[in-house]
Formats: sequence, structure tokens, C-alpha cells
Amino acid sequence: MAGDDVKKSDANASGGVKRKEVKKETGLGLTNCKDDNFGEWYSEVVVNGELIEYYDISGCYILRPWAMSIWETMQKFFDVEIKKMNIQNCYFPLFVSPGVLQKEKDHVEGFAPEVAWVTKTGDSDLEVPIAIRPTSETVMYPYYSKWIRGHRDLPLKLNQWCNVVRWEFSNPTPFIRSREFLWQEGHTAFATKEEADAEIGVMVMVHGDDKGLVLPPKVATVQVIIIPVPYKDADTRGIFDACASAVDILSGAGIRAKADFRDNYSPGWKYSHWEMKGVPLRIEIGPKDLANSQVRVVRRDNSLKIDISRTNLVEHVKEMLNNIQHNLFDVAKQKRDACVKTIRTWDEFVEALSQKKLILAPWCDEEEVEKGVKARTKGEMGAAKSLCSPFDQPELPEGTKCFASGKPAKKWTYWGRSY
Amino acid sequence: MAGDDVKKSDANASGGVKRKEVKKETGLGLTNCKDDNFGEWYSEVVVNGELIEYYDISGCYILRPWAMSIWETMQKFFDVEIKKMNIQNCYFPLFVSPGVLQKEKDHVEGFAPEVAWVTKTGDSDLEVPIAIRPTSETVMYPYYSKWIRGHRDLPLKLNQWCNVVRWEFSNPTPFIRSREFLWQEGHTAFATKEEADAEIGVMVMVHGDDKGLVLPPKVATVQVIIIPVPYKDADTRGIFDACASAVDILSGAGIRAKADFRDNYSPGWKYSHWEMKGVPLRIEIGPKDLANSQVRVVRRDNSLKIDISRTNLVEHVKEMLNNIQHNLFDVAKQKRDACVKTIRTWDEFVEALSQKKLILAPWCDEEEVEKGVKARTKGEMGAAKSLCSPFDQPELPEGTKCFASGKPAKKWTYWGRSY
Repeated sequence: MAGDDVKKSDANASGGVKRKEVKKETGLGLTNCKDDNFGEWYSEVVVNGELIEYYDISGCYILRPWAMSIWETMQKFFDVEIKKMNIQNCYFPLFVSPGVLQKEKDHVEGFAPEVAWVTKTGDSDLEVPIAIRPTSETVMYPYYSKWIRGHRDLPLKLNQWCNVVRWEFSNPTPFIRSREFLWQEGHTAFATKEEADAEIGVMVMVHGDDKGLVLPPKVATVQVIIIPVPYKDADTRGIFDACASAVDILSGAGIRAKADFRDNYSPGWKYSHWEMKGVPLRIEIGPKDLANSQVRVVRRDNSLKIDISRTNLVEHVKEMLNNIQHNLFDVAKQKRDACVKTIRTWDEFVEALSQKKLILAPWCDEEEVEKGVKARTKGEMGAAKSLCSPFDQPELPEGTKCFASGKPAKKWTYWGRSY
Repeated sequence: MAGDDVKKSDANASGGVKRKEVKKETGLGLTNCKDDNFGEWYSEVVVNGELIEYYDISGCYILRPWAMSIWETMQKFFDVEIKKMNIQNCYFPLFVSPGVLQKEKDHVEGFAPEVAWVTKTGDSDLEVPIAIRPTSETVMYPYYSKWIRGHRDLPLKLNQWCNVVRWEFSNPTPFIRSREFLWQEGHTAFATKEEADAEIGVMVMVHGDDKGLVLPPKVATVQVIIIPVPYKDADTRGIFDACASAVDILSGAGIRAKADFRDNYSPGWKYSHWEMKGVPLRIEIGPKDLANSQVRVVRRDNSLKIDISRTNLVEHVKEMLNNIQHNLFDVAKQKRDACVKTIRTWDEFVEALSQKKLILAPWCDEEEVEKGVKARTKGEMGAAKSLCSPFDQPELPEGTKCFASGKPAKKWTYWGRSY
């Protein structure tokens, strides 16, 4: 077990499962299908799409620029929202003394088997081992009480962006279950958005297809990739110039566009490469396009090809990017909605749970009742727990009862099994 | 030694040194003078100015919002510059396997005594201990060689913003010498800007005075603090409204302004509080100001008081903030320039070193020669090393010789003792 921690990762290794042939034309392509071997498809997509690189410590992953820029986009957006709520950023140390960690025993109990301990520095043993934070609220609260001298200092709303470590022993998965991960944690007036890091993983899983990643335009590092398609005897120089000028025009309008001028890869190879990396729009410019003052645009989400005039390039591209963004959202929402089951009684709850549904239920909002739900559903599949309450609450008519306790319901909440 | 690591910090403790009286009026104020007890003055300023809080693990510090927002300002500015240079951000894991760490022995040698080792997770011992990164280049380079498949993949310019750990045993000092610190590291085409984290510390030391912090307007979280000064029988409501409206007007113009409406502190207490925290400009509004449609503005850097009409508030405040920014820079530059000594020979070098000068010298730019300089100056005070080469190089006439080797000089470089 522990001996496995430092080893070459066996990502992409697989037993005798069905595999596709890698495309001859490009040397790229995926060997696993999303529907047949989901887990291996996922590993392959995140590596071949250049989001991560496996690392020599199992459960730790290198976030390559393609992933990092998505994280930065999400972080920038969310940080602005955090500041709007008058929450201030701070930074607490990576290390936690055992006393502080054990002070809130109940809270930390779940993490205890996953805590990494520093016991040595240089050649010296520490007299008291020091823990690496699995989360920071137990660390932060003692200082809150020091800084809050009276009611006028309330509310004290702090947030930090940091790395945390949980030495999980179950199957590690990039973005979804890794031993070190980046996140933000807001305490106390602000609920921890624990899912932030997993969002990239979920995005890959929901939108990805058998060609690789599919990135929503809003988070894509490159929104438009422009590929010159020269032919023998064609005006190669003119084609390259047209590509460069398209980059300038689109960039000038705030669109993240880039041309792939590499001369050691064919256009076909480049198509596959940028499809694998999930770029929302591809623009091809060949001799015919040059002659007609047009470009060919290919959508990553549905492979639609369309020729558009260079005259209104910016407007067309903006519209298509918007369209892709909404399309991805709508398709994902439909899929999600198909998995949601609204229930009102315990029996309906149990049945929906067995169907692996995401369950929306009226709840009395009492902690003891949630504990009861957990206890009653404990089994092979993982106990059920509350996930979140929708911002836009459905109507809750007077007299609606909690599905679990029968007490008056206070709000609608999503429930599901913890994985 | 190691037993000291988990203990209550003894910050602000002091032997029989000269102390000032804390101001009766405010209960604030510093007990140490910058000129008399520099080290204790520094500890006191960073805590009372609410930049940091001491932590129960020695050498680790909590960065409070006041420090964090300065860090964020610097980070945002620098991150934009990094991206302009086509350097991409990435994130490598916190943990390093011992094999990788030892691969570049020469490089890591200096860090070895300072490396923190994880040997336990939960209750289990790891078979192979895992190091916490003291820096990441040894980790990153093996992957560079994997990602670079040909010359067309060059240059590969990556950067990461992260935390690193060096378990220093010499006297820890917030921002200057801490065991965990935040930084950015760019490899390979980009020189590591190791000083980034220390800049806050140096800023405090250079600009701070006996009233506390003095923040340059560009990095100040709050640039203008507005304090109502009500009197008995005065139009308190009118004064408060005037303050709120001034905040609106200044904020609307992009100035970071805030009013302190707390009713449990006197105006005098608030003056000291915000002086301690280094806010560049204070605006006071009392009955007389209200009557004359003016405000009183007080500069933090030189205590100048001036009454200005509310009509041109934004213009006046902008001009004063600019003025403060330049004034702080000029004063600091003068102080620095007074410490710089330009030399040309080894004898001049040794003399300037003994005077603790920052030394500007013509150099042949050879690593071996720098090693020689280090060896020849090793002593109680710390060996001399090259610090950086100024972007704006002074003229280097043909025939100028290296101060240390006598070979032809290639550039001007700053030298000093390593602390």
C-alpha cells in the first residue's frame, strides 16, 4: 500500500478491453471509446489533451498550461464574485500542529487516515510531527476568535486559494480524486465550494467525446485555432498571410485565436491535435478560400462545417462561439435533468437512490435528520447525503413535509450517494 | 532545535530595550522605534499593521487580508507581464520523490538540510519518504525533456505560482525568511524571481516609520480612509452622509476608498489605527468642513494636512496619491543609491563589502569566477554573491576588466553578501 506511493504511474495500462486503432493519418486519436471504457477514455483524454501529465508519485498530477489556464479562468471569475460579497482573501500556513488538528476531533475524524505527516527535516527528526492541511477550518477558527473583539468585527469572512493534501488510498483520478489539489475555502460566513477542483474533471467527462476534449468557449485557452491548408502550386504565402491576418482581427476583438504554422505536421494531423485539445472552433484557409475571400469554420461540438465571408469574420465567430457555449450547456443540462428525480416520500427516495438518480426532495433542514438518512442508506454504494440547495428554489407549498422526518419542510435540497 | 518547531511564538517579546509608551489616547501606537530596535519594530509593525499573525509553528505566518491584497496586486501585475512574454502557467505537485530530488545533487545540496520529509500518512509509515518541494526545477526538467520532441517545441517557457518549504533554522522573519512562502518560479527561459515574496517585507522595512506601515498607493488595499469627525450638537447625520458620498465619488473614479463608521472608536483612535495600517491618505470630515464644502486631507508619508474643496475631490486625490507614490519611490531610491558603490578592482570590492555596500562591478559573467569570489569572501558576515544585473546597463567601455578575474568584463552586476 504505502510502498506504492513512489512508483511510475500505470495510467493508460489496461487489461484486455476493446480498443480503437489510432488514426494512421495523424498518429493521434484515442484508443478507448467513451461509452465502452469510460475510465480509460478519461485517463487518455486528460493526458492526450495535454491537461495533465502523470507524475512519479501516485495520485499527484502535473497541471499543464492547458488545464492551468482553465483553472485560472474559473478562479478569476470566482474571485471577483467572492470580493463582491465582501469576503477577503488571506493565506494560512500549509502546516498544522497536531494539537490544533485534534482540537476539533469530530470534524477531522474523517480526514485522519488521509493526513500526511512531516516527521523529519534535513537529517533531524522533529520532536512533534507536523500535519499537512487536509482543510483549514480547524486552523482558522482559533484566530477568528482572537481577531473578533466584539460584534462590530462581525461578520469575519475570509477565503483562501491554496493547495491541500488528502492521502486517499482509493483509486486516484486526475481532477476528481487526487492526493494534492488546488481549491478555495471560505470560512465561516461562506460555504466551502469543495467541488471547484473537480469541475475541470466533470467538464471533461460531460462534454468530452471520442475525439478528445470539448472545451466550452468561456474557459478555452484557445477559442479559435486557424490552420493554413496549402496545396502544391498554390499561393502558400498568401494563405499564411490570410491566417496571420485572421488571428490579428479576431484577437483585436478579444477572441482568443491562434494559428498553427508548424511546417512539420500536415493539416490533418493538426485537425486531430486541436480536436484532442478541445478547441471550440477551427478555421481552415486554403487556396479556394483565399480566392473567394472566405474561410471554412468547423465546430468542435457537432462537427458542422460552414464557409463564411471574411467581411464579417468577427461577428460570425462571436455568434458561433456563443452558440457553442449555449449548446454545450443545454445538452449537459438535458442530460442532468434526465438524471434528476423529484420525490416527496421516503419510499420514492429509496427507489430513486437505487436508480442512481440525483434526488430533489423537500427537507426540514435538520442535521440530525440528515444523519438519520445517512445511517438508513449505508450500504455497498455509499450512504446518501445532501449535496446542495438550489439558488432558485421551486415553490414549496404550505404543508409540504420533509421526505425523511415528516416534519414541515423548509427547502428543496439535492441528495445523492457520496462516492 | 527541532523541539522548538511547535511552540507559541515569542514575537514581540524583548529583553531590556528602550520602549516608547503606547499612546494613551488610542491604545495603539508602537512600543519600538525604527532607529533604536529595528528587528522588534519590524515584528511589531507587521503584526499591529495587520499584515500577519504569528502562528503556532515557528517560521510559518498567517497572511492576513491586508498582506494578501498587496501580494495579489503584485501577482496580478507580474502575471500579466509573464503572459506577455509567452510564458505559460502550470502547476507541479508539492511532493517530490527522493530520486528526483537527488538527481541534481549539486543543485539541491544547499537545500538538503532544509527539506521537510513526509514519512507517515494516517497511521502508516511510507516505505519511501517523500520530500516537500524547496524549489521545482529539478522536478520540472525531466518532464521538459519528455514534452520537447524537437526544436519546434522550443522554447518551452513555464511558470508556476506556488508555495515552497525550506526548513530554515536561522532566525525566521515574516516575509523575509519564513519556512513556507509563496512565490513564482519560471523555468527555463525565465530567471527565477526569488525575491518576489520578500518584496512585501522590504517594502515594510524601507517605507515604514514609528507610526507603523507606510504603503505605496499602487499596492495599498485602501488608498483613502475617510473618517467622520462629529462634535456635540453638530449635524452628525450630515457629516456621515458627506463621508458616504465621498466614498462613492472616489470609488466611482477607481480610487480604493473606504469610510470608517464604527461608533465605538474615537476619531483619534481611528487615525492611529489606519496610520498603523499604512493607508496613504486620510480624509477627515467635521462640522467646519461640512459648512465650507471642503474636506481635510492628511498624507501618511509626510503628515502634511491640507483642506481641499469637494468640487475637485477626485482630481486632487488622484494628484496626491501620485505624488505620494513618487515621493516614496524617490526617497527609497535616494537611500538605496547612497548604499551603492561602483567599483572596478578587487581591493575596492573588498573595502566596499566591509562597508556593507551594495556593489556594482564589471564582471566577466563566468560561474567559476563567482565561485572564486564566494570562496575568497567566506567569513562571519556571509560570502559575497552576484545579486542581479541591471536592465539599464551603464556604459561598459571597451577594455574594461572583470573586478575579480581580470578577464574582459561582459556586463555590470550588483554584488552583496548573502544573508
